[in-house]
Formats: sequence, C-alpha cells, structure tokens
Amino acid sequence: MSTQLTETQLLKQLKPLIADKYSSAVASLLEAHRAEDIAEIFWELELEDAKFLIKVIEKDKAVEVIRCLDDEIQERLFKEYPAREIADDVISYLDSDDAVDILNLLPTRKAEEVISYLEDQEYAKNLISMLHYDDDVAGGLMAKELVKVKFNWTVSQCVEEIRKQAEEVTAVHAVYVVKDNDVLIGVVSLKDIVLAKPHASVVEITKEEFISVNAYATGEEVASIMNKYSLIAIPVVDGMKRLIGRITIDDVVDFIKEEADKDFQLQAGLSESVDSSDKIWILSRARLPWLMVGLLGGLGSSALVSNFEGDISHLPQMAFFMPIVAAMGGNAGVQSSAIIVQGLANNTLKSKNILPKLTKEFTVALLNGLICSALLLSWNLLIGHSYDLSIVVSIALITVVIFASLLGTITPLVLEKFKIDPALATGPFITTINDVIGLGVYFTLGRLLLGGF
Amino acid sequence: MSTQLTETQLLKQLKPLIADKYSSAVASLLEAHRAEDIAEIFWELELEDAKFLIKVIEKDKAVEVIRCLDDEIQERLFKEYPAREIADDVISYLDSDDAVDILNLLPTRKAEEVISYLEDQEYAKNLISMLHYDDDVAGGLMAKELVKVKFNWTVSQCVEEIRKQAEEVTAVHAVYVVKDNDVLIGVVSLKDIVLAKPHASVVEITKEEFISVNAYATGEEVASIMNKYSLIAIPVVDGMKRLIGRITIDDVVDFIKEEADKDFQLQAGLSESVDSSDKIWILSRARLPWLMVGLLGGLGSSALVSNFEGDISHLPQMAFFMPIVAAMGGNAGVQSSAIIVQGLANNTLKSKNILPKLTKEFTVALLNGLICSALLLSWNLLIGHSYDLSIVVSIALITVVIFASLLGTITPLVLEKFKIDPALATGPFITTINDVIGLGVYFTLGRLLLGGF
Repeated sequence: MSTQLTETQLLKQLKPLIADKYSSAVASLLEAHRAEDIAEIFWELELEDAKFLIKVIEKDKAVEVIRCLDDEIQERLFKEYPAREIADDVISYLDSDDAVDILNLLPTRKAEEVISYLEDQEYAKNLISMLHYDDDVAGGLMAKELVKVKFNWTVSQCVEEIRKQAEEVTAVHAVYVVKDNDVLIGVVSLKDIVLAKPHASVVEITKEEFISVNAYATGEEVASIMNKYSLIAIPVVDGMKRLIGRITIDDVVDFIKEEADKDFQLQAGLSESVDSSDKIWILSRARLPWLMVGLLGGLGSSALVSNFEGDISHLPQMAFFMPIVAAMGGNAGVQSSAIIVQGLANNTLKSKNILPKLTKEFTVALLNGLICSALLLSWNLLIGHSYDLSIVVSIALITVVIFASLLGTITPLVLEKFKIDPALATGPFITTINDVIGLGVYFTLGRLLLGGF
Repeated sequence: MSTQLTETQLLKQLKPLIADKYSSAVASLLEAHRAEDIAEIFWELELEDAKFLIKVIEKDKAVEVIRCLDDEIQERLFKEYPAREIADDVISYLDSDDAVDILNLLPTRKAEEVISYLEDQEYAKNLISMLHYDDDVAGGLMAKELVKVKFNWTVSQCVEEIRKQAEEVTAVHAVYVVKDNDVLIGVVSLKDIVLAKPHASVVEITKEEFISVNAYATGEEVASIMNKYSLIAIPVVDGMKRLIGRITIDDVVDFIKEEADKDFQLQAGLSESVDSSDKIWILSRARLPWLMVGLLGGLGSSALVSNFEGDISHLPQMAFFMPIVAAMGGNAGVQSSAIIVQGLANNTLKSKNILPKLTKEFTVALLNGLICSALLLSWNLLIGHSYDLSIVVSIALITVVIFASLLGTITPLVLEKFKIDPALATGPFITTINDVIGLGVYFTLGRLLLGGF
C-alpha cells in the first residue's frame, strides 16, 4: 500500500496533461484513483489547475474529492466559486456534517446565500440548526443522516427504512430506536437485524443500555468516550433526550489528532494552530507571545546577573558555566512536566496523591543530578578549572536539576487544578522560569562558597 | 456523561466494602457499572484489593474488566496468577487480538505455558501464529475473529455464517469474501446483506475495490490508511493475498494516540515511553540521554565562552545578556522545527520545495527578530545600559532568531530525508545547538563591534 509512490507518479503524468488542458486524458487517468488519493495531489497544484481538475472529474467523484481536501485548500477554492454553484454542485451532494464543515469555512453572508439556494428545504433547515453549534462540540461534529426507527415497528419495517435511507446514509453502523416524540430509547446493531426474524418486534432486539452524548459535549469529551467504550458511532441528543444526530468515529479520529497536535504546539511555544503554508503574519503572531515570555524571562535573568557584576569581573570564569546551568534546568524541568502532562491527558494520573509523586521525582532528579554533576566535575578538574569553581558548578547543577524537576512536576498539577491546560507547563514558560532560578542559585552559591569570589 | 464523577463516587462507596471483604455488596454495587468504568478504579486499588474485586465480579464481566485495564496494571496483576488460571479464566474468553496483547506482557515461558493450557487447539494455534508478529505491525494488531464467506455462496448462506460466528465475532462491520484458497477477493457491507435478496449470490453485492494491508505493515501505516479512507475495519493479508485477520479502528485509535505521545516525549527530551508510575531507574534512564546532550552542549558553550574570558573581565555586562541570547535562539528554533515536524507528520508538507519554505521562514524570523530586538533595545536604553552594548545585544538577537529559525526548519527536513524521526529536531538537540551558536554569534559580534570591548 505505497500510496506515496502512486501520488508522485500520478502527479508526474498529470502535470503535462493539465498544462495542455487535455480534459479527456486527465479524466480517464483519474478514473482509476480514489477520491482520497486525488485530494492529496491538490497540495501541489496552482488554484487554476485545481479548478480545472474539479471541472474535469466526473461529478460524484469531484464532490468526494472536494470533501477530502484539507480545509485550507477548500477555503481557497471556494473563494473562487459563486454561492449558487457551491450549493448546487457541492453542498447538496454532501452529508450534513461535511456540508457544515464547508459552510463554516465561508464568510457568514456567503454561507447564508449558499443555504438559500438549496432545493431540499428539510436539508437546508438541518444545516441551519447545525450551524448554531461550534465546530468543536458534538452538535458541530454530528451528521443528521442516520437510520431512525419507531420502537413498535417490526424488523422488516426496519429493513424497509434502511432501504429508504440507503442512498443518504452511506455507512449505517446501527439503527436508532425512538419513541413517538423522537426520544431515543435504544440502539439495534446491524448484526442483530441480520440475525432476527423479519416479523420480530424491534424492541426485542433493542439494546437499551447505550451511550449517548449531549449536543454541547466538547469534541474532546466525545473522542474520549468513543475511545474508552470502543464505539464506532455515538448518538447525539438534545436536552430532552431527543435524537438529533450521530457522530462516527472517523470524525473523532481527526479530533484526537487535533488535540494531540495542540499539546505539541503548546510545548513548542506556538499559541495557535499553524501550518507552514499559513500567511506570514499568522505565523509570526502564533510565535510572538512565547518569544515575549522568553524576552521577559531574559530581562529577568539579565537583571539578576547584573547584581553579580562585581563578582563576574573578579572571576570571569563564572560566566563560562551560565549556559550549562540554565540549559540543564530547562531540560530537567521540561522532562518532568511532560511526564505529568501526558499522565493527565491519558487519565492515568489522578492529581490528589501529590506527595509520593514529588518524593519519586526528587529521587529521580537527585540520581540524574548526581550523575551529571559527577561527570561535569571530573571533566572540569581534568581540563584544569579551579577546584573551588568546579565544586560550585557541580553543586549548582544538582540543585538546579532537583529544583527544576520539582517545579516541572508541581506546575502542571496546579494548572490542572485551576482548569488551565497543563500542557502550558511544558513550553517556554517553564524553561524561562528555570533559567532565571537556575542562574540565581548558581551565582548565590558562587558568592557564598567562593566568599565574594 | 460525567464519568469522572461516577468513578470518584463509586470508589468512595466501594473502599469500605472492600476493606470489609463484603463480597455480595461489592458485586451488586458493580453490577450497574460498565466494565470500562470499573477498570478505571483499578488505578486507585492496592494489588490485594484488585484481586479481590476480580474474584467477586461476575465471570464474563471480570474478563471484560481485565481486558480494559491498562497494560501496566495487567502486568502487575498477572504476575500474581498461575498460568493455568490465566488460560482458563481469561485468555480463553478473549478475542485473539486482546489475548495476544496480554500474552505479550508475560515472560515468554509463562506465555507458552498459558497457551499450552488452552483447550481450543485452533485458537491456540492462532495465538502462536500471531505472537510471531511485533505488537506494532498489522499482524500484531489484528484479530483472527472475522466473518469469512466463499464467493460462490448465496446471501442466506452468508447470514447463516454470521449466525454461526455471532458469538465469537462481537462486532461484524463487514463480511470478507474469499476464493477456495482463502485469497481475499472482496468485501460485503452488512448494510448490503440486509438489503439483498436471500437467494442472491454473494458476488453480486461484493465490492471488489477494497483496501487491505499486509501483515508486516507498521501500525502507523495502518492508522494512516484507515484514517485517510475513513475505514472502521481493514482486512490483513499475507504475502499471497490470503486473508489472515482484520484490524478494527478502536485498536488503531490507541495507536494514533501512542504515536502522538511519542512525538511529545521526543520533544520533551524523553528517550522512551515512560509513565510517572514507572520505576525510578526507568524514569532516570529515559531522561539521562538528553540530559547528556545538554551537558555536552553546555561544555561546548563553556569552552566557547572561555575564549572570551578577557573580554568578559573588561566588560562584565556582556554576561548579563548571555541568557537572553541563548533562550531566544532556543525558543525560535523549537517553534520553527515544530511546525515542520507537524507538517511532516500530517502529510501536509512535501519535503521537496525547500527554498520557498526557507524564504518564508526567513521573513517570519526577521519580523519577529526585529520586534523583539526593538523592544529589547528600547528597554536597555531606558534603564541606562551603554548604547554600544545595547546595539550589539539587539543585533545578536536578530541574528540568532533568524539563524535558529532556519536551522529549525532545515534539521527536521534533513532528518526526514535520512529516514530519522524528524521529531528529534524539536527536542533538547536543537535547543542545545542553538545555545552554542547563539553565544558564539553574540560574543563575536561583541568583539567586532565593541572593538575588543
């Protein structure tokens, strides 16, 4: 399954044909490829060529391709099309969840215009009701397309309903059983429908112990519930327990990835989700906040070090080890906090028993600090630094590693307690604090142990 | 769906009952709870209490609970049970994929002993064949339980086969169509079986365009294919295209999370997957390699700075700004590399067009470097640092931010080219290099512009 190779080859064959606007050849070349694969090559196309490709591909597949495109490309592309075309050629062919994703990319006025052109009034109403939800809550993630049956139906009535909905609902997964007022009372698996007698009543095979989510549950909650209970689809209900949609696992897989991406970005000091293809000022804006934190921390460090100006001019060697003390503090702090942040994210850590965690962290830090300090001491003595200075540097190193580890452990736990994303603690924030504190420890120790140098 | 609350409440009610060994009360209390929820409270239990709970819970549910436990708890628990019990009470009740996961946790000899006690010879043979695969390739992720039908069967024969397999295969998702020699030729969805006439032939409704993976495909590949094509189950084939198992999306969701966790750990400078509950020496071992990198880098910095000893003793103020130069270089470098690493991981970035990326990165870095330097310059002049020194610091800051950003962009792309995990470039590695280079630039500039100070 080397899709990567196919894509490169495909692109190579495609480019000259597109350049020549050789429609029939392009169409026949793409016929053998899946929409998901065709969508990938759009990354490498100019806007004009992308539009040409969509015009050339057979209608149903073109819609699939558009659905599979990355948001970014979709957004760029839809700027080029009038609302009427978007409504008739794209939105009216899509499942409601995919349609809403696209409508959310358009400016509000254009989205409203697109909806006004839709011929299916029921569908238009559904889309409007879904647009009320943020795109990261269950109501924004769900699709309206599902198979819904009444509790007093027979299995063969169920099968009829599936047949009726078959064209709209691509993947059925399960059938949802409701009372007259649409209140969800249970779920029937397709397997049980296959195995039941046609005249059996639906209630007989209905599983009444099921898991649903409220329309305002966050995407993160939905993802964690579906993951925990190994669900491939989950019904979404409103405040009165009425069935209003369902979410399938594929939409949530994306969400799990997005969440993981967010932690990674916070750790790297990016304040918003960016992509290397974003505009320059967006890329700059995402990075500036954390650079400012670094700048402030740096000013703190320089103010701190300036208190030791006299000591440095007496013993300039003190400056040699400033980078090592600051860097080791930063590294040790980030390591500790990352372990805690990950434990919190995976729910394998409860924030109550803090003391044993701190004791353990202290032991690990002491061990690592000792090893690093011993190595550093040997090296410093070997290359002929003064005995006193070498001792000060090594004691400072142990102290800083221990201190940074404890701070790295406590900070995410405290942030979690105050409902702030603990991943903040793994980023430049903790590195910066540890820089300042580490240098403070180092110079203070120096002054104390080297007696004003 | 506030499962968190339920869990805490449950634990509160449970603890005194467990302490009193009040079996019947514990059993009736747990009856109303799902296995997944019960599994969560094991994090808070002592080993003895965990064993007691498993003994008390009704058999089928106890197996479910064990299946849902975290590896770590499973491993600790199974140390306590003899092989015979593990075989009879746990493994023989599980799907092959879950069984293999548990066998992989046991010492090889004990795992072999467990398998030898299994009564179902076919099942034992399956498990042995699956144990040959690493647990992060398709063969190790797949389950042997699936519904397989012959291409020349009728739909009603299919339904009969589903009925026969119903007890073993909990979630059917799809039926796999094979030729006599077990070569996979297509897939039938359950929906199509529901809608087909009983006497229709299976081939009529078979989708012959399907996606399968080889048993040696990595978990990451399987995850990305299932995610890309929105699959909830994927068949696994051997080198001769014979069907040997299937992987369901829930096993891959875990895998996506594991992969994301790995990037996060590398970025934080942890060399292996650790958990705050791991043993002290494991925690220490995971962190030491990167601390050593920091140590080496620090020694590099100190060797570098020592070349400027004379300059520092003439102008000790130079030392004040060492931390800010080093920290800003580190931060800017990690930010750039994180964007590239994420782009590579999400396949939104192709590594060929490097030049436009570098140009863009240069512009962003120049912009951010200018803003930060201007702020720093104003501040330094405001609090009365010398004009010359302030200018040197600000020029060094711009240079370092730009240099670090470019290095942060290039490094992951180069690592990717040499098939090394690009996430390495976001960790202490890049911070350390930037520390050394940043300080080198700073002191060299200082010597040039301040004329030997």
